[in-house]
Amino acid sequence: MESRISIITLGVSDLDRSIRFYRDGLGFRTKANEGDDIAFFGLNGTALALYPLEKLAEDIGPDIRPSPSGFSGVTIAHNVRNKCEVAAVLSLAEKSGGVVVKQAQDVFWGGHSGYFTDPDGYYWEVAWAPKATFDENGNLEFEG
Amino acid sequence: MESRISIITLGVSDLDRSIRFYRDGLGFRTKANEGDDIAFFGLNGTALALYPLEKLAEDIGPDIRPSPSGFSGVTIAHNVRNKCEVAAVLSLAEKSGGVVVKQAQDVFWGGHSGYFTDPDGYYWEVAWAPKATFDENGNLEFEG
Repeated sequence: MESRISIITLGVSDLDRSIRFYRDGLGFRTKANEGDDIAFFGLNGTALALYPLEKLAEDIGPDIRPSPSGFSGVTIAHNVRNKCEVAAVLSLAEKSGGVVVKQAQDVFWGGHSGYFTDPDGYYWEVAWAPKATFDENGNLEFEG
Repeated sequence: MESRISIITLGVSDLDRSIRFYRDGLGFRTKANEGDDIAFFGLNGTALALYPLEKLAEDIGPDIRPSPSGFSGVTIAHNVRNKCEVAAVLSLAEKSGGVVVKQAQDVFWGGHSGYFTDPDGYYWEVAWAPKATFDENGNLEFEG
């Protein structure tokens, strides 16, 4: 098995609303339009997909019941290159229909971060890490 | 905001067990060891992180209560290059301590896929898509 995540799929309750949030609000690139059955965003290697929650559960199996109320245990991080961008991205998310659940602040591990939730309540951390380095595609560099 | 997911973090109940599942079982590259506070896997641009669930909730805020029972609404897809690899990866996941919840099968969109859950019940789809193309890093190519 290669070390790879190809796609993260979020099961959403209103696909058109979510397309508008990610495409028009956050500015993520996609060819998806309102009325489509699924939306893909190419991003930086791992793609983001949006798909109706009930259909995503059905895709796994007939007995799968979605229970996405509250914190599901998964966070998605978007790392930025400069400290001041954390607040700027949180503000953009809020203007786009998200909710800022943790304001930009210095955090215990030496960085600066905050959280917003998307229209379905999925948690995104916006983070700046002082020692982080980015490769030419904007991906964080990790020694594996 | 750049179109980018830097890290997916899964809140886990037993970090050592999860490190063994992803590192020793699936073969994902990491420098993490049992006893560490957090584990990072560099992967293909978007990193995977494992962090104790209660601490992940705390990191968002004091009022966040984890409720990861059942299907959280998020799936992580690992796309393979050949149809026969779907069953092979599911088998590897099972030998590593995961549970195959949908056997490899032809699916409605023309591909071949199945699902396994990791030791905390997070859903991974293993998929082969007949028309998918991969870039030189093994990432799916999407027109954005």
